[in-house]
Amino acid sequence: MKNDLTTNRRAFLKTTAALTAGISFPTLMMASPTVDEGIHIIGPKEGFSPQVGTLVSMMNWMRDTVLRSVKGLKQEELDYLHDPRSNTIGAMLLHLAATEVFYQGNTFEGLRDFKDKATWSIPMGLGEQGRKTIKGHDLAYYVNILTETREKTLSELRKRDDKWLMTVDPKFFGGQPTNNYCKWFHVVEHESNHNGQIKYIKGRLPGATGGAD
Amino acid sequence: MKNDLTTNRRAFLKTTAALTAGISFPTLMMASPTVDEGIHIIGPKEGFSPQVGTLVSMMNWMRDTVLRSVKGLKQEELDYLHDPRSNTIGAMLLHLAATEVFYQGNTFEGLRDFKDKATWSIPMGLGEQGRKTIKGHDLAYYVNILTETREKTLSELRKRDDKWLMTVDPKFFGGQPTNNYCKWFHVVEHESNHNGQIKYIKGRLPGATGGAD
Repeated sequence: MKNDLTTNRRAFLKTTAALTAGISFPTLMMASPTVDEGIHIIGPKEGFSPQVGTLVSMMNWMRDTVLRSVKGLKQEELDYLHDPRSNTIGAMLLHLAATEVFYQGNTFEGLRDFKDKATWSIPMGLGEQGRKTIKGHDLAYYVNILTETREKTLSELRKRDDKWLMTVDPKFFGGQPTNNYCKWFHVVEHESNHNGQIKYIKGRLPGATGGAD
Repeated sequence: MKNDLTTNRRAFLKTTAALTAGISFPTLMMASPTVDEGIHIIGPKEGFSPQVGTLVSMMNWMRDTVLRSVKGLKQEELDYLHDPRSNTIGAMLLHLAATEVFYQGNTFEGLRDFKDKATWSIPMGLGEQGRKTIKGHDLAYYVNILTETREKTLSELRKRDDKWLMTVDPKFFGGQPTNNYCKWFHVVEHESNHNGQIKYIKGRLPGATGGAD
């Protein structure tokens, strides 16, 4: 599967460098007020406190990037097991939702575990149980779960402020002080972590032609 | 190679849930002034403007996470090629540095390509040239390059402010308006993207025992 040029920076760079050789860009960088729209504008967003909105803009960017990676994948591709210890792309998508649900419970309600373990334990833990049970769904199934989960997150974030975001849990990651911003930053970077694996596997689907980074 | 418990959230969750069953945490969440220290505190940092400092805290967290993934790897492991179209772990580390160097040039100097193509083109593009040429180095080689590159970034970020961070490049990602914050957020999430691939390959090194997520 060819890489989408808009997301493949290596191809983008080669193309851009070729097109712009010898051309100067005097107006390249312009100071501007915060542009509220546009997926590639990270910063405060309307409807959220400043840092919460900045976090939301990162969440939007990351989710957009992940969805672009899996666009058009069919059930067989979502269920493809690259080796006996891999996770399928579909399972990883459900895992992203599980992770977000965990941090909803943890940061919005102070919980230390899932309320609904029946739904989320396996998507969270993946492993052999994940390989056995998470299969047979089309892309819309996973995207709907991710979207609903995100809607819940955004709805809760709208009610909170930057003081909440900076609130420190005295012992969390590595048993160390961890603030809500760090927990939600982790939710974001964790999507990228698995997106890298998704692209690795996508490049190796039966019939795939291109590498992926 | 066993997963470090401090980074493996799945194991962390199972352990924490087991340890805390039945224990309530009335003082779990406490409002506090910004704690400036601690790797798991995302937010403004001393010596930087508020949003630049927040970005720096994310960069620190992400880099710490990547270095934890590759800690103790030997040259043969850094050079291990999992399949003919993979990147080695070592090459991916150099690729992270190349990406950061690119965005230094782009956001600090308005450049559209590397000044020093001889050094960075192959680490940026990886592919077959990357597989052929990036090998034979120990971990310290890669970590030193990453660290020096990061020092340059931090030195430049200290001189800039939030207005610079929000400055919009009218056409960048996908030909769309992209601010400096988005470019540097991408540098951060890009490390996680490849960290996911690094962990995938690490779990499959000759002699590896554990899976990795």
